[in-house]
Amino acid sequence: MAELSERMRALVQPHLAGIEPYDPNFTPTRINLSANENTYPLPDGVRAAIDGVLAATPLNRYPDPMSGALRDELAAWHGVTRENVCVGNGGDELLYNFLLAFGGQGRTLLVCPPCFSEYEFFASLTQTSVRTVRRDRKTLRVDEKATLAAAQTADLVIVTSPNNPTGDALPVSFVAQLCRACPGMVMLDEAYIEFADAGYDACGLLASCPNLVILHTLSKAFGEAGIRCGYVIAAADAIDVFAAVRQIYSVNVLTQAAALAAAQMRDAFVPVVEKIRSERERMLAALESDERVQAWPSQGNFLLVRVDEASAIRRRLRDEHSILVRDFSAVPGLEGCLRITVGTPEENDEVLAALEALLDEEA
Amino acid sequence: MAELSERMRALVQPHLAGIEPYDPNFTPTRINLSANENTYPLPDGVRAAIDGVLAATPLNRYPDPMSGALRDELAAWHGVTRENVCVGNGGDELLYNFLLAFGGQGRTLLVCPPCFSEYEFFASLTQTSVRTVRRDRKTLRVDEKATLAAAQTADLVIVTSPNNPTGDALPVSFVAQLCRACPGMVMLDEAYIEFADAGYDACGLLASCPNLVILHTLSKAFGEAGIRCGYVIAAADAIDVFAAVRQIYSVNVLTQAAALAAAQMRDAFVPVVEKIRSERERMLAALESDERVQAWPSQGNFLLVRVDEASAIRRRLRDEHSILVRDFSAVPGLEGCLRITVGTPEENDEVLAALEALLDEEA
Repeated sequence: MAELSERMRALVQPHLAGIEPYDPNFTPTRINLSANENTYPLPDGVRAAIDGVLAATPLNRYPDPMSGALRDELAAWHGVTRENVCVGNGGDELLYNFLLAFGGQGRTLLVCPPCFSEYEFFASLTQTSVRTVRRDRKTLRVDEKATLAAAQTADLVIVTSPNNPTGDALPVSFVAQLCRACPGMVMLDEAYIEFADAGYDACGLLASCPNLVILHTLSKAFGEAGIRCGYVIAAADAIDVFAAVRQIYSVNVLTQAAALAAAQMRDAFVPVVEKIRSERERMLAALESDERVQAWPSQGNFLLVRVDEASAIRRRLRDEHSILVRDFSAVPGLEGCLRITVGTPEENDEVLAALEALLDEEA
Repeated sequence: MAELSERMRALVQPHLAGIEPYDPNFTPTRINLSANENTYPLPDGVRAAIDGVLAATPLNRYPDPMSGALRDELAAWHGVTRENVCVGNGGDELLYNFLLAFGGQGRTLLVCPPCFSEYEFFASLTQTSVRTVRRDRKTLRVDEKATLAAAQTADLVIVTSPNNPTGDALPVSFVAQLCRACPGMVMLDEAYIEFADAGYDACGLLASCPNLVILHTLSKAFGEAGIRCGYVIAAADAIDVFAAVRQIYSVNVLTQAAALAAAQMRDAFVPVVEKIRSERERMLAALESDERVQAWPSQGNFLLVRVDEASAIRRRLRDEHSILVRDFSAVPGLEGCLRITVGTPEENDEVLAALEALLDEEA
């Protein structure tokens, strides 16, 4: 594994000395189901609309710092006002800024792993301590009672619903309890919420939970991972904090224009999301019918499965079938687990057939 | 001035309690010469090339984390290898990450104000102490001797050449001395270098100064402030540090594609830069011919001028002429100063005429 040079280890902040340079060791594959992207074409008309606004966008002027037009559209969409919305350079920027603003040395972030690995990475960058309440080893669901108890002495909390990579969603009533239990801010990462059953979106809690910050993204259901557009919805004074610590031009003019067009045409994505949901259930049924596979139900656009020889299966999927899935088998609690993004019917058929063939051979 | 709510002041990190939410209080004007943007149309063919690559870019996949194709083009441009280049979401991200990586609590950043205000903002976000060696009050040039002395006990240094907003450039020999004097990393912000006379670009020092990080941007000479693309050139192990602390998808697919097209067509920008340089000299001569105006020579695409009643002049330029320039009169050392971006000949004629008319009236 790469590491910093001796010279650089001496020059960086002490808590960063062990950090590993990102290694872009990437194998192009025919079918990429590794990153929970939306692998469907954009709905009819959306790409043309985006190309139109991109071509009409001047490039030489700095962006509108707060993405005004996009912010208004997102606010109208979610039934809040512009003061309740801050747009970011992907969810990543907003997650980082949440830790930068409310975390830091001497403060404790509560998370419920296995969950999105960036939470702990950004905590380490900002010197925020991390306390974990691990999920149930078998169901992979949050231990609600232990989490509520731990939240009482946490400075901030991040929970994910639906959770990546386990797929489960949190009851809204639990999120409300969590907000009451925690004396600090609670971020609810709803990156995959559009794929969940009705009733899981916690936006209705914002009026009664002033310490709740909800994170959304256009990267998943809306098929725009490439443009980097996330946003938080929260009380106006919490939004002020995000506005204060951010790099003011972090969301470029092309992203603002493309995201606005996509948000305006959001209804066009409903059939795609429905298709992904039905494909997810079809894949789950197929996987569950194979006794060599353990699969968990999912509210996201992905499925977590456990198989024998997971790393070998993943490698052979890549090398022999040119299909990429994500290996989680080195993550504590996820031994033997792979995460498979739900793709198009053809992609899903291929990954199911290839997986079955490899399991036959490995047996 | 806006401030955080009492509740938020209690919840954010203590060093952030006094931070001010960004106030997007923006007056649209007919002629905007306030942000050192390139106000010329993109050279023939460049916009068409950019529109072509944008339309051909898939939006649903995450970006290449290290902007591989763009990185290779930038490396070839500057005669280095890809290991010497890191692309960022504008220069801002790279400046912030420089402070995050090499600054922090207990460390001291040396700057020579008046200079770009973001340096001190990012220092405050990262709890880096700031030591200043102020420029000469009259010439506004760096005090080289005092800066070299202070650098010996600074943990990191940021200097700017040409400097914003004073316009002067640093001799390469001084940058080399500075790198030898400072035990830590030295960032040279060359955002405006393409507008400077030959001989100021310090890229040639990289081989002999392993602690030098040079910052470039496509926002100025290349007319792409809107897309947010900056890059650093440095020793490979310093680039590893930038790669390690960054948010891996910070540079979106549209920016990567547009920046690559612009970088490939960089020669087309030479005539625009030459035109801006000649317009700068024309404006400087016109301004210097007015005894009510003090103007400093500039190696950038802007001029700093001192006039009586600067804030009133700036307000009347905006309100009566719909011309926006930047007011620096509240900045220590820049009393009475306005910064005027060099625009097109027509824009420059208008600002010169309006300024003269207002000075006549204020007299």
